[in-house]
Amino acid sequence: MTPQVTAFTWVPAFAQGYVRDLRVRWALEEAGLDYEQVLLSLEAVKSAEQRRWQPFGQVPAFRDGEVEMFESGAIVLYLAGKSSVLAPEGEAGLAQVSSWIFAALNSIEPLAWACLHFEPHVTPKVEGEGPSARAILEQRLADLAAWLGDRDYLLGRFTAADVIMGSVLRELVEGGALASFPTLDAYRRRCEARPAFGRAMAAQLAPFAENAPA
Amino acid sequence: MTPQVTAFTWVPAFAQGYVRDLRVRWALEEAGLDYEQVLLSLEAVKSAEQRRWQPFGQVPAFRDGEVEMFESGAIVLYLAGKSSVLAPEGEAGLAQVSSWIFAALNSIEPLAWACLHFEPHVTPKVEGEGPSARAILEQRLADLAAWLGDRDYLLGRFTAADVIMGSVLRELVEGGALASFPTLDAYRRRCEARPAFGRAMAAQLAPFAENAPA
Repeated sequence: MTPQVTAFTWVPAFAQGYVRDLRVRWALEEAGLDYEQVLLSLEAVKSAEQRRWQPFGQVPAFRDGEVEMFESGAIVLYLAGKSSVLAPEGEAGLAQVSSWIFAALNSIEPLAWACLHFEPHVTPKVEGEGPSARAILEQRLADLAAWLGDRDYLLGRFTAADVIMGSVLRELVEGGALASFPTLDAYRRRCEARPAFGRAMAAQLAPFAENAPA
Repeated sequence: MTPQVTAFTWVPAFAQGYVRDLRVRWALEEAGLDYEQVLLSLEAVKSAEQRRWQPFGQVPAFRDGEVEMFESGAIVLYLAGKSSVLAPEGEAGLAQVSSWIFAALNSIEPLAWACLHFEPHVTPKVEGEGPSARAILEQRLADLAAWLGDRDYLLGRFTAADVIMGSVLRELVEGGALASFPTLDAYRRRCEARPAFGRAMAAQLAPFAENAPA
């Protein structure tokens, strides 16, 4: 049975190319796995039926036989366990891929999101004057750049961790946070230049063009 | 070989009981697995040696034979694959546990963190007036409460997903966000009442008492 991925029929321009089914499509394209897209409107994704599959009324959700999942990180990590293109063989390699997927989604993306959407100041709940979200983000990016060094990808070779970290770094381009980190910007461009990324992007954008409001 | 978990020798009062090694200790206690704590000072965790294990200079890091990991979510998910106490047997059950661990860390915690530390207003980068972080958080909590319904735990029975979601909800108590969601507050209390949680908490706090500055 072909795996299924939910995605949107159409979203506003600012979200096109950034909806998170892109991450799952990218991983599937890297692994050379066929999939079926299940297109939903912005209203249909909030239905009671869809919430049994994706409890927060979002995309992507994923089905592979008896396996039903949601959250792009979880789905991409699941796929990493299925394909040697997405993770080194063996438990230790998959554990490293998992660590980096969680790092992208819990140690980098929340700060990126806070910097993009909210003023970077700190409430007095933190004792003394805590650092701003921007300052924390820049420290994390410096740590990430130091790790990357002259590696092409997080674990040397390309893995599913780069699908997620590359996707998170794309979100930082608009705010200019990557400008001070040429190592990271080059890594982000290297990820986006992969043919599988291009195919995934085209697949996400195609229904938006077909279903654009008149 | 006994698994190793890094933790802090001492942290300031506001962080005691909330450092993320607690999540790993809790999962290990639930599974009945022995572990060795590797205590580090706030300075030592930033050393070049530690950053080869935990690139962001944080705790916890984890070692189990050849497996070396970081990020509490990744470690707890790894443990879920080792113990039927932490996940239903089989791939479909572990996939659900994984989905909920990622949901806690990427769909709930970033909003909780933004509400705790930053003013809840939105920049004009979002077209029109976007919702505040607090409003998004409250919608996600409503979705979570609807999912939970009269279940005791996220998947009915206790799993590793409750270790992470319970830990994330604990962070919401201080800001009062759980006051409008009695279902979630009862769930959070149910998680905290587990003997394994109590043992994990005592284990985290013991070195802090021993190493308190004079």
